[in-house]
Amino acid sequence: MNDGCVAGLHLDAGTRAQARRRLLSIKGHVEGILRMLEDDSLYCVDALKQIKAVQGALDKVGGLVLRSHLRDHVVTAADRGDTDQIVAELMEVLKYR
Amino acid sequence: MNDGCVAGLHLDAGTRAQARRRLLSIKGHVEGILRMLEDDSLYCVDALKQIKAVQGALDKVGGLVLRSHLRDHVVTAADRGDTDQIVAELMEVLKYR
Amino acid sequence: MNDGCVAGLHLDAGTRAQARRRLLSIKGHVEGILRMLEDDSLYCVDALKQIKAVQGALDKVGGLVLRSHLRDHVVTAADRGDTDQIVAELMEVLKYR
Amino acid sequence: MNDGCVAGLHLDAGTRAQARRRLLSIKGHVEGILRMLEDDSLYCVDALKQIKAVQGALDKVGGLVLRSHLRDHVVTAADRGDTDQIVAELMEVLKYR
Repeated sequence: MNDGCVAGLHLDAGTRAQARRRLLSIKGHVEGILRMLEDDSLYCVDALKQIKAVQGALDKVGGLVLRSHLRDHVVTAADRGDTDQIVAELMEVLKYR
Repeated sequence: MNDGCVAGLHLDAGTRAQARRRLLSIKGHVEGILRMLEDDSLYCVDALKQIKAVQGALDKVGGLVLRSHLRDHVVTAADRGDTDQIVAELMEVLKYR
Repeated sequence: MNDGCVAGLHLDAGTRAQARRRLLSIKGHVEGILRMLEDDSLYCVDALKQIKAVQGALDKVGGLVLRSHLRDHVVTAADRGDTDQIVAELMEVLKYR
Repeated sequence: MNDGCVAGLHLDAGTRAQARRRLLSIKGHVEGILRMLEDDSLYCVDALKQIKAVQGALDKVGGLVLRSHLRDHVVTAADRGDTDQIVAELMEVLKYR
Protein backbone atom coordinates (compact mmCIF):
# COMPACT_ATOMS: atom_id res chain seq x y z
CA MET A 1 0.00 0.00 0.00
CA ASN A 2 2.95 2.26 0.56
CA ASP A 3 3.97 2.71 -3.03
CA GLY A 4 4.33 6.33 -3.98
CA CYS A 5 3.32 7.36 -0.48
CA VAL A 6 4.64 10.58 0.94
CA ALA A 7 6.53 9.51 4.08
CA GLY A 8 5.04 10.40 7.40
CA LEU A 9 1.65 11.67 6.22
CA HIS A 10 -1.30 9.90 7.82
CA LEU A 11 -5.08 10.14 7.66
CA ASP A 12 -6.20 11.69 10.94
CA ALA A 13 -7.99 9.53 13.50
CA GLY A 14 -11.27 11.44 13.35
CA THR A 15 -11.61 11.08 9.60
CA ARG A 16 -10.63 7.41 9.80
CA ALA A 17 -13.40 6.81 12.35
CA GLN A 18 -15.97 8.67 10.24
CA ALA A 19 -14.90 6.85 7.09
CA ARG A 20 -15.16 3.52 8.93
CA ARG A 21 -18.71 4.25 10.08
CA ARG A 22 -19.77 5.13 6.55
CA LEU A 23 -18.03 2.12 5.02
CA LEU A 24 -19.71 -0.21 7.51
CA SER A 25 -23.03 1.17 6.32
CA ILE A 26 -21.91 0.75 2.70
CA LYS A 27 -20.97 -2.87 3.43
CA GLY A 28 -24.50 -3.40 4.79
CA HIS A 29 -25.93 -1.82 1.66
CA VAL A 30 -23.89 -4.16 -0.56
CA GLU A 31 -25.15 -7.13 1.49
CA GLY A 32 -28.69 -5.84 0.90
CA ILE A 33 -28.11 -5.82 -2.86
CA LEU A 34 -26.67 -9.35 -2.64
CA ARG A 35 -29.94 -10.47 -1.03
CA MET A 36 -32.01 -8.64 -3.67
CA LEU A 37 -30.05 -10.51 -6.34
CA GLU A 38 -31.27 -13.86 -4.95
CA ASP A 39 -34.85 -12.89 -5.83
CA ASP A 40 -35.79 -14.08 -9.31
CA SER A 41 -38.48 -11.41 -9.59
CA LEU A 42 -35.93 -8.59 -9.16
CA TYR A 43 -36.41 -5.75 -11.64
CA CYS A 44 -33.20 -4.50 -13.30
CA VAL A 45 -33.86 -0.84 -12.60
CA ASP A 46 -34.29 -1.51 -8.88
CA ALA A 47 -30.85 -3.14 -8.85
CA LEU A 48 -29.37 -0.20 -10.79
CA LYS A 49 -30.85 2.28 -8.30
CA GLN A 50 -29.24 0.47 -5.37
CA ILE A 51 -25.86 0.30 -7.11
CA LYS A 52 -26.04 4.05 -7.79
CA ALA A 53 -26.92 4.67 -4.14
CA VAL A 54 -23.81 2.78 -3.01
CA GLN A 55 -21.69 4.80 -5.46
CA GLY A 56 -23.14 8.00 -4.05
CA ALA A 57 -22.25 6.85 -0.52
CA LEU A 58 -18.70 5.99 -1.66
CA ASP A 59 -18.40 9.45 -3.22
CA LYS A 60 -19.14 10.87 0.22
CA VAL A 61 -16.47 8.76 1.94
CA GLY A 62 -14.03 9.78 -0.80
CA GLY A 63 -14.96 13.42 -0.23
CA LEU A 64 -14.26 13.09 3.50
CA VAL A 65 -10.82 11.62 2.93
CA LEU A 66 -10.01 14.09 0.15
CA ARG A 67 -10.96 17.08 2.29
CA SER A 68 -8.80 15.79 5.11
CA HIS A 69 -5.88 15.21 2.73
CA LEU A 70 -6.17 18.71 1.23
CA ARG A 71 -6.39 20.36 4.66
CA ASP A 72 -3.66 18.35 6.40
CA HIS A 73 -1.17 17.52 3.66
CA VAL A 74 -1.69 19.35 0.37
CA VAL A 75 -1.75 22.92 1.68
CA THR A 76 1.55 22.31 3.49
CA ALA A 77 3.38 20.67 0.58
CA ALA A 78 5.39 23.81 -0.28
CA ASP A 79 6.67 23.89 3.32
CA ARG A 80 7.72 20.25 3.20
CA GLY A 81 9.13 20.56 -0.31
CA ASP A 82 7.18 17.65 -1.83
CA THR A 83 4.87 19.68 -4.09
CA ASP A 84 5.60 17.68 -7.26
CA GLN A 85 4.75 14.34 -5.68
CA ILE A 86 1.69 15.63 -3.85
CA VAL A 87 0.27 17.24 -7.00
CA ALA A 88 1.05 14.26 -9.24
CA GLU A 89 -0.63 11.71 -6.97
CA LEU A 90 -3.62 13.97 -6.38
CA MET A 91 -4.16 14.50 -10.12
CA GLU A 92 -3.90 10.73 -10.55
CA VAL A 93 -6.49 9.91 -7.91
CA LEU A 94 -8.90 12.60 -9.13
CA LYS A 95 -8.69 11.26 -12.67
CA TYR A 96 -10.99 8.32 -12.33
CA ARG A 97 -14.38 9.35 -13.70
CA MET B 1 -38.55 -2.07 -4.11
CA ASN B 2 -41.40 -2.38 -6.59
CA ASP B 3 -42.21 1.29 -6.90
CA GLY B 4 -42.26 2.42 -10.49
CA CYS B 5 -41.42 -1.08 -11.62
CA VAL B 6 -42.67 -2.29 -14.96
CA ALA B 7 -44.76 -5.36 -14.11
CA GLY B 8 -43.38 -8.73 -15.07
CA LEU B 9 -39.88 -7.66 -16.10
CA HIS B 10 -37.11 -9.46 -14.25
CA LEU B 11 -33.35 -9.50 -14.30
CA ASP B 12 -32.29 -12.76 -15.94
CA ALA B 13 -30.74 -15.50 -13.80
CA GLY B 14 -27.36 -15.45 -15.53
CA THR B 15 -26.87 -11.73 -14.99
CA ARG B 16 -28.04 -12.02 -11.39
CA ALA B 17 -25.44 -14.73 -10.76
CA GLN B 18 -22.67 -12.69 -12.40
CA ALA B 19 -23.67 -9.55 -10.50
CA ARG B 20 -23.68 -11.53 -7.24
CA ARG B 21 -20.17 -12.85 -7.84
CA ARG B 22 -18.89 -9.35 -8.52
CA LEU B 23 -20.70 -7.85 -5.53
CA LEU B 24 -19.25 -10.53 -3.24
CA SER B 25 -15.82 -9.45 -4.39
CA ILE B 26 -16.78 -5.80 -3.87
CA LYS B 27 -17.93 -6.62 -0.35
CA GLY B 28 -14.52 -8.19 0.30
CA HIS B 29 -12.84 -5.07 -1.06
CA VAL B 30 -14.91 -2.85 1.27
CA GLU B 31 -13.90 -5.08 4.20
CA GLY B 32 -10.28 -4.62 3.14
CA ILE B 33 -10.67 -0.83 3.25
CA LEU B 34 -12.28 -1.12 6.68
CA ARG B 35 -9.18 -2.96 7.90
CA MET B 36 -6.88 -0.35 6.28
CA LEU B 37 -8.79 2.33 8.18
CA GLU B 38 -7.82 0.73 11.50
CA ASP B 39 -4.17 1.47 10.75
CA ASP B 40 -3.11 4.84 12.15
CA SER B 41 -0.28 5.09 9.61
CA LEU B 42 -2.70 4.91 6.68
CA TYR B 43 -1.95 7.49 3.99
CA CYS B 44 -5.01 9.36 2.63
CA VAL B 45 -4.19 8.78 -1.02
CA ASP B 46 -3.98 5.02 -0.50
CA ALA B 47 -7.49 5.10 0.98
CA LEU B 48 -8.71 7.23 -1.96
CA LYS B 49 -7.24 4.78 -4.47
CA GLN B 50 -9.08 1.86 -2.87
CA ILE B 51 -12.37 3.77 -2.79
CA LYS B 52 -11.97 4.59 -6.50
CA ALA B 53 -11.23 0.93 -7.24
CA VAL B 54 -14.49 -0.11 -5.55
CA GLN B 55 -16.37 2.52 -7.57
CA GLY B 56 -14.84 1.16 -10.75
CA ALA B 57 -15.96 -2.36 -9.80
CA LEU B 58 -19.48 -1.08 -9.06
CA ASP B 59 -19.55 0.63 -12.47
CA LYS B 60 -18.88 -2.77 -14.02
CA VAL B 61 -21.76 -4.42 -12.11
CA GLY B 62 -23.99 -1.53 -13.12
CA GLY B 63 -22.92 -1.99 -16.74
CA LEU B 64 -23.81 -5.70 -16.62
CA VAL B 65 -27.28 -5.00 -15.28
CA LEU B 66 -27.84 -2.09 -17.67
CA ARG B 67 -26.86 -4.16 -20.71
CA SER B 68 -29.21 -6.91 -19.65
CA HIS B 69 -32.02 -4.39 -19.10
CA LEU B 70 -31.49 -2.78 -22.51
CA ARG B 71 -31.37 -6.13 -24.31
CA ASP B 72 -34.27 -7.82 -22.51
CA HIS B 73 -36.64 -4.98 -21.69
CA VAL B 74 -35.89 -1.65 -23.34
CA VAL B 75 -35.70 -2.81 -26.96
CA THR B 76 -39.11 -4.49 -26.58
CA ALA B 77 -40.88 -1.55 -24.92
CA ALA B 78 -42.68 -0.46 -28.11
CA ASP B 79 -44.14 -3.98 -28.42
CA ARG B 80 -45.37 -3.96 -24.83
CA GLY B 81 -46.59 -0.37 -25.06
CA ASP B 82 -44.72 0.92 -21.99
CA THR B 83 -42.19 3.13 -23.79
CA ASP B 84 -42.85 6.25 -21.71
CA GLN B 85 -42.26 4.50 -18.39
CA ILE B 86 -39.22 2.56 -19.61
CA VAL B 87 -37.58 5.70 -21.01
CA ALA B 88 -38.40 7.84 -17.97
CA GLU B 89 -36.96 5.39 -15.44
CA LEU B 90 -33.89 4.74 -17.57
CA MET B 91 -33.14 8.47 -17.91
CA GLU B 92 -33.58 8.77 -14.14
CA VAL B 93 -31.17 5.95 -13.33
CA LEU B 94 -28.57 7.17 -15.83
CA LYS B 95 -28.66 10.67 -14.38
CA TYR B 96 -26.54 10.05 -11.33
CA ARG B 97 -23.03 11.43 -12.04
CA MET C 1 -20.01 10.10 -39.46
CA ASN C 2 -21.96 7.14 -40.66
CA ASP C 3 -19.68 4.45 -39.29
CA GLY C 4 -21.58 1.97 -37.21
CA CYS C 5 -24.79 3.87 -37.84
CA VAL C 6 -28.07 1.97 -37.93
CA ALA C 7 -29.44 2.66 -41.41
CA GLY C 8 -32.44 4.93 -41.69
CA LEU C 9 -32.57 6.15 -38.07
CA HIS C 10 -32.44 9.94 -37.71
CA LEU C 11 -32.58 12.43 -34.88
CA ASP C 12 -36.01 14.10 -35.05
CA ALA C 13 -36.25 17.72 -36.22
CA GLY C 14 -37.60 19.05 -32.90
CA THR C 15 -34.71 17.61 -30.89
CA ARG C 16 -32.19 18.82 -33.46
CA ALA C 17 -33.59 22.36 -33.17
CA GLN C 18 -33.51 22.24 -29.35
CA ALA C 19 -29.99 20.82 -29.33
CA ARG C 20 -28.88 23.55 -31.76
CA ARG C 21 -30.29 26.30 -29.53
CA ARG C 22 -28.48 24.91 -26.52
CA LEU C 23 -25.21 24.41 -28.39
CA LEU C 24 -25.32 28.00 -29.68
CA SER C 25 -25.54 29.10 -26.06
CA ILE C 26 -22.68 26.73 -25.16
CA LYS C 27 -20.58 28.21 -27.95
CA GLY C 28 -21.23 31.66 -26.49
CA HIS C 29 -20.20 30.36 -23.07
CA VAL C 30 -16.93 28.98 -24.48
CA GLU C 31 -16.26 32.35 -26.14
CA GLY C 32 -16.83 33.98 -22.74
CA ILE C 33 -14.21 31.69 -21.15
CA LEU C 34 -11.81 32.52 -24.00
CA ARG C 35 -12.19 36.21 -23.12
CA MET C 36 -11.71 35.47 -19.40
CA LEU C 37 -8.46 33.70 -20.29
CA GLU C 38 -7.05 36.90 -21.80
CA ASP C 39 -7.22 38.56 -18.37
CA ASP C 40 -3.96 38.11 -16.48
CA SER C 41 -5.72 38.58 -13.15
CA LEU C 42 -7.99 35.58 -13.79
CA TYR C 43 -8.30 33.29 -10.76
CA CYS C 44 -7.99 29.55 -11.51
CA VAL C 45 -11.11 28.56 -9.62
CA ASP C 46 -13.23 31.02 -11.59
CA ALA C 47 -12.01 29.38 -14.79
CA LEU C 48 -12.74 25.92 -13.36
CA LYS C 49 -16.29 26.96 -12.43
CA GLN C 50 -17.00 28.16 -15.97
CA ILE C 51 -15.60 24.96 -17.47
CA LYS C 52 -17.83 22.89 -15.16
CA ALA C 53 -20.83 25.02 -16.16
CA VAL C 54 -20.20 24.28 -19.84
CA GLN C 55 -19.89 20.56 -19.04
CA GLY C 56 -23.22 20.69 -17.22
CA ALA C 57 -24.82 22.37 -20.25
CA LEU C 58 -23.34 19.69 -22.55
CA ASP C 59 -24.73 16.99 -20.24
CA LYS C 60 -28.18 18.50 -20.83
CA VAL C 61 -27.80 18.47 -24.62
CA GLY C 62 -26.58 14.89 -24.39
CA GLY C 63 -29.63 14.01 -22.26
CA LEU C 64 -31.97 15.51 -24.86
CA VAL C 65 -30.43 13.49 -27.67
CA LEU C 66 -30.27 10.32 -25.56
CA ARG C 67 -33.94 10.57 -24.56
CA SER C 68 -34.93 11.04 -28.18
CA HIS C 69 -32.78 8.08 -29.24
CA LEU C 70 -34.26 5.82 -26.56
CA ARG C 71 -37.85 6.82 -27.39
CA ASP C 72 -37.57 6.73 -31.18
CA HIS C 73 -35.01 4.01 -31.88
CA VAL C 74 -34.04 1.87 -28.90
CA VAL C 75 -37.52 0.78 -27.80
CA THR C 76 -38.27 -0.39 -31.37
CA ALA C 77 -35.04 -2.32 -31.91
CA ALA C 78 -36.64 -5.73 -31.32
CA ASP C 79 -39.18 -4.95 -34.07
CA ARG C 80 -36.47 -3.93 -36.52
CA GLY C 81 -34.23 -6.84 -35.51
CA ASP C 82 -31.13 -4.75 -34.79
CA THR C 83 -31.05 -5.18 -31.00
CA ASP C 84 -27.41 -6.28 -30.83
CA GLN C 85 -26.12 -3.24 -32.70
CA ILE C 86 -28.39 -0.77 -30.88
CA VAL C 87 -27.36 -2.12 -27.46
CA ALA C 88 -23.65 -2.29 -28.30
CA GLU C 89 -23.44 1.29 -29.56
CA LEU C 90 -25.53 2.61 -26.67
CA MET C 91 -23.31 0.90 -24.09
CA GLU C 92 -20.28 2.36 -25.89
CA VAL C 93 -21.60 5.91 -25.87
CA LEU C 94 -22.72 5.70 -22.23
CA LYS C 95 -19.31 4.45 -21.15
CA TYR C 96 -17.45 7.73 -21.20
CA ARG C 97 -17.51 9.02 -17.59
CA MET D 1 -16.42 36.54 -11.36
CA ASN D 2 -14.52 37.58 -8.33
CA ASP D 3 -16.88 36.22 -5.70
CA GLY D 4 -15.15 33.97 -3.26
CA CYS D 5 -11.83 34.56 -4.98
CA VAL D 6 -8.64 34.43 -2.97
CA ALA D 7 -7.08 37.86 -3.46
CA GLY D 8 -3.94 38.09 -5.54
CA LEU D 9 -3.90 34.54 -6.93
CA HIS D 10 -3.84 34.36 -10.70
CA LEU D 11 -3.70 31.64 -13.32
CA ASP D 12 -0.20 31.71 -14.82
CA ALA D 13 0.29 33.02 -18.35
CA GLY D 14 1.54 29.71 -19.77
CA THR D 15 -1.50 27.78 -18.58
CA ARG D 16 -3.83 30.53 -19.78
CA ALA D 17 -2.28 30.32 -23.25
CA GLN D 18 -2.55 26.52 -23.32
CA ALA D 19 -6.14 26.61 -22.09
CA ARG D 20 -6.99 29.21 -24.75
CA ARG D 21 -5.56 27.04 -27.51
CA ARG D 22 -7.56 24.06 -26.35
CA LEU D 23 -10.75 26.07 -25.93
CA LEU D 24 -10.42 27.52 -29.44
CA SER D 25 -10.30 23.94 -30.71
CA ILE D 26 -13.32 23.08 -28.52
CA LYS D 27 -15.21 26.04 -29.96
CA GLY D 28 -14.47 24.70 -33.44
CA HIS D 29 -15.73 21.27 -32.37
CA VAL D 30 -18.98 22.79 -31.07
CA GLU D 31 -19.41 24.61 -34.38
CA GLY D 32 -18.92 21.28 -36.13
CA ILE D 33 -21.73 19.72 -34.06
CA LEU D 34 -23.95 22.72 -34.86
CA ARG D 35 -23.43 21.99 -38.57
CA MET D 36 -24.12 18.26 -38.03
CA LEU D 37 -27.40 19.22 -36.39
CA GLU D 38 -28.57 20.95 -39.58
CA ASP D 39 -28.49 17.60 -41.39
CA ASP D 40 -31.88 15.85 -41.19
CA SER D 41 -30.24 12.47 -41.71
CA LEU D 42 -28.09 12.85 -38.58
CA TYR D 43 -28.05 9.71 -36.43
CA CYS D 44 -28.51 10.30 -32.67
CA VAL D 45 -25.53 8.22 -31.63
CA ASP D 46 -23.19 10.19 -33.89
CA ALA D 47 -24.34 13.38 -32.16
CA LEU D 48 -23.85 11.76 -28.74
CA LYS D 49 -20.32 10.69 -29.66
CA GLN D 50 -19.37 14.24 -30.65
CA ILE D 51 -20.85 15.68 -27.44
CA LYS D 52 -18.83 13.18 -25.40
CA ALA D 53 -15.70 14.10 -27.32
CA VAL D 54 -16.19 17.78 -26.44
CA GLN D 55 -16.71 16.83 -22.80
CA GLY D 56 -13.49 14.86 -22.86
CA ALA D 57 -11.65 17.87 -24.30
CA LEU D 58 -13.15 20.11 -21.60
CA ASP D 59 -12.00 17.63 -18.95
CA LYS D 60 -8.47 18.10 -20.24
CA VAL D 61 -8.66 21.90 -20.07
CA GLY D 62 -10.08 21.59 -16.55
CA GLY D 63 -7.20 19.27 -15.63
CA LEU D 64 -4.64 21.80 -16.89
CA VAL D 65 -6.14 24.59 -14.83
CA LEU D 66 -6.57 22.37 -11.77
CA ARG D 67 -2.96 21.19 -11.88
CA SER D 68 -1.76 24.78 -12.14
CA HIS D 69 -3.99 25.81 -9.23
CA LEU D 70 -2.76 22.96 -7.03
CA ARG D 71 0.90 23.65 -7.81
CA ASP D 72 0.79 27.44 -7.56
CA HIS D 73 -1.85 28.15 -4.95
CA VAL D 74 -3.08 25.15 -2.99
CA VAL D 75 0.27 23.81 -1.79
CA THR D 76 1.14 27.29 -0.42
CA ALA D 77 -2.16 27.91 1.37
CA ALA D 78 -0.74 27.13 4.83
CA ASP D 79 1.95 29.76 4.28
CA ARG D 80 -0.59 32.37 3.25
CA GLY D 81 -3.02 31.34 6.00
CA ASP D 82 -6.05 30.87 3.73
CA THR D 83 -6.34 27.08 3.99
CA ASP D 84 -10.03 27.04 4.89
CA GLN D 85 -11.07 29.10 1.88
CA ILE D 86 -8.76 27.29 -0.54
CA VAL D 87 -10.02 23.88 0.59
CA ALA D 88 -13.69 24.89 0.61
CA GLU D 89 -13.66 26.32 -2.91
CA LEU D 90 -11.64 23.38 -4.24
CA MET D 91 -14.08 20.83 -2.76
CA GLU D 92 -16.94 22.84 -4.29
CA VAL D 93 -15.44 22.92 -7.76
CA LEU D 94 -14.51 19.21 -7.68
CA LYS D 95 -18.05 18.29 -6.69
CA TYR D 96 -19.68 18.62 -10.08
CA ARG D 97 -20.35 15.11 -11.47
